[in-house]
Amino acid sequence: MDTRELRDKGLALRREMLGREAVDARMGALGAFGEPLQDIINAYAYGDVWSRTALPPATKSLAMIAMMAAIGRTNELRVHVKGALNNGCSAVEVQDILLLVAMYCGIPAANDAHRVAVEVLRERDAK
Amino acid sequence: MDTRELRDKGLALRREMLGREAVDARMGALGAFGEPLQDIINAYAYGDVWSRTALPPATKSLAMIAMMAAIGRTNELRVHVKGALNNGCSAVEVQDILLLVAMYCGIPAANDAHRVAVEVLRERDAK
Amino acid sequence: MDTRELRDKGLALRREMLGREAVDARMGALGAFGEPLQDIINAYAYGDVWSRTALPPATKSLAMIAMMAAIGRTNELRVHVKGALNNGCSAVEVQDILLLVAMYCGIPAANDAHRVAVEVLRERDAK
Amino acid sequence: MDTRELRDKGLALRREMLGREAVDARMGALGAFGEPLQDIINAYAYGDVWSRTALPPATKSLAMIAMMAAIGRTNELRVHVKGALNNGCSAVEVQDILLLVAMYCGIPAANDAHRVAVEVLRERDAK
Amino acid sequence: MDTRELRDKGLALRREMLGREAVDARMGALGAFGEPLQDIINAYAYGDVWSRTALPPATKSLAMIAMMAAIGRTNELRVHVKGALNNGCSAVEVQDILLLVAMYCGIPAANDAHRVAVEVLRERDAK
Amino acid sequence: MDTRELRDKGLALRREMLGREAVDARMGALGAFGEPLQDIINAYAYGDVWSRTALPPATKSLAMIAMMAAIGRTNELRVHVKGALNNGCSAVEVQDILLLVAMYCGIPAANDAHRVAVEVLRERDAK
Repeated sequence: MDTRELRDKGLALRREMLGREAVDARMGALGAFGEPLQDIINAYAYGDVWSRTALPPATKSLAMIAMMAAIGRTNELRVHVKGALNNGCSAVEVQDILLLVAMYCGIPAANDAHRVAVEVLRERDAK
Repeated sequence: MDTRELRDKGLALRREMLGREAVDARMGALGAFGEPLQDIINAYAYGDVWSRTALPPATKSLAMIAMMAAIGRTNELRVHVKGALNNGCSAVEVQDILLLVAMYCGIPAANDAHRVAVEVLRERDAK
Repeated sequence: MDTRELRDKGLALRREMLGREAVDARMGALGAFGEPLQDIINAYAYGDVWSRTALPPATKSLAMIAMMAAIGRTNELRVHVKGALNNGCSAVEVQDILLLVAMYCGIPAANDAHRVAVEVLRERDAK
Repeated sequence: MDTRELRDKGLALRREMLGREAVDARMGALGAFGEPLQDIINAYAYGDVWSRTALPPATKSLAMIAMMAAIGRTNELRVHVKGALNNGCSAVEVQDILLLVAMYCGIPAANDAHRVAVEVLRERDAK
Repeated sequence: MDTRELRDKGLALRREMLGREAVDARMGALGAFGEPLQDIINAYAYGDVWSRTALPPATKSLAMIAMMAAIGRTNELRVHVKGALNNGCSAVEVQDILLLVAMYCGIPAANDAHRVAVEVLRERDAK
Repeated sequence: MDTRELRDKGLALRREMLGREAVDARMGALGAFGEPLQDIINAYAYGDVWSRTALPPATKSLAMIAMMAAIGRTNELRVHVKGALNNGCSAVEVQDILLLVAMYCGIPAANDAHRVAVEVLRERDAK
């Protein structure tokens, strides 16, 4: 497949999972400097890896939440908590993952991730 | 629930997920010094957190693989790759998680985790 | 011991170490979503691990500061700098730990931790 | 060399690389509590390690950006993006390093670092 | 560009930088399970990111050493110390980077990286 | 103080804490390539930071164990478990620190650290 097609395919999936508006805001935020990174995200992360079909998107979203909570990347965590809810996960499913984080990556990692999850859940409920 | 009951309940689940022999070997390896940690693992991690039922064990195992690959804890990763296979995950499901690790935690994290996964898969196939 | 007793015992110790008001604010901040994590903190972290008596609380607080500075968890670091001061540590004792952090975890880890420590010390002195 | 000389030599180099005003602001920000850490930075980091001459400062600055992006220390990253630009690096050179970060430490590490780099570049262009 | 071309272009560059034999050994080591990861490495890391030309390969190799030492990924570190030497870096240039690691990521990170670097240098000198 | 004096003073303290033979073996292991790093360890870590006297060496050793367990640097952890025992800490004191690691940095961090601690304790008891 041509890399431009890969990127377009990825961008379509990314918008479907995370919402067109949110994706486009993120893509514009870093201007020209951020374009090569956005191409990597669209083509390689979404066009290739997220497009694989061995697992349902919801399971991948929960694994992403576990991973981002583990390494303390809260910006990306926020994106994937939203993605998990869009992909059909419930709050208690997210909670069960974050309790695994508490036991296997420590209470502070779980605490920081809870803050992000609660923010996302409150925003959703406010709509 | 009494904490001894919690520990016994957790130990039963842990043995079911990971195999009695493997669990007992791990519990004995660190002698008396390791007993309080084993109690924490049995009672709090398995008796409490793993016993929650919002998610199927296979999904939790995949999240554990993502998490342990992310933070580079290969001993624990090995345990949970085995656990994932015992909980019904396929090799390609594990692979899809590790490709997310490649994109979101970097190629070296994925590479180190692949080594562990391939070892576990080869051991299983050799049986 | 029953797990509810463990939790109550832990909560009492936690309030003693960190102040009732501060603990109750933290417990409420994450609402119902955060309750299982708060139970883990109260029962397992404070009811069990912090309740062990081989070391004085001040020594444990200093080890917590070292650990949280090392892994860059500044929210938890703030809690335990306050806890260290409540447990009788002096500013220069906290400083000596953070200089070990500088040498063994790097200058940026120490710098980020200094910011937190100075904030806590200034708040205390403003009272 | 006397350690005071080492510190003065380091401070001079640090001011040359990062700007006198910026360095003095950082040195003052943490008051008396921060003095021993500032001495470590001036004497050992700048007076010794940065003063070594096997590599040009620009190459070291790029390595620092890679390192700080890798471990998510954004305050220090900001300092060294500025330092890289002062040491003669171009925006596209910084970008090429951050794309290595994307592949080898993961997209979220690169994303967080891009935010910092774009801020620094915009501040510079606004002058 | 077609993704297969991107992969072939990347594989050619990777073999040039790290040696054909070493690359082929790594590509074979993880069998069929490892193929998607190898495609990611060849196409996206080498075909895209390493193929960018704002910086000379030697500078990128030194940044990779800094990054891998920082996050403690010793397998990948070994690859890139070899790559740095192949790309024309001297031992003392590698050393200067690792002394920055000592100051900014801590002595243990630098120590672990020194072990790897010394092994690679001794292997090279034994040839 | 002259930096050579600082280094000699630090080396003396390091040998006192960790044993002359062990220190000299570590200093020789990395040959000429490792000399600048050994100077950093002797002069800056031991001559300066470890020489500060606000805290007893045993407390610092326990904080070092917490820190090294937290960031998974097992070589350095081994050194400081030995140092803690030399500085008068008991096995149960080390254990209490590692149980804090379990709760605040996760079970795998504590598990890996337990392995190191048990090895050191068994070596000591075998003497």
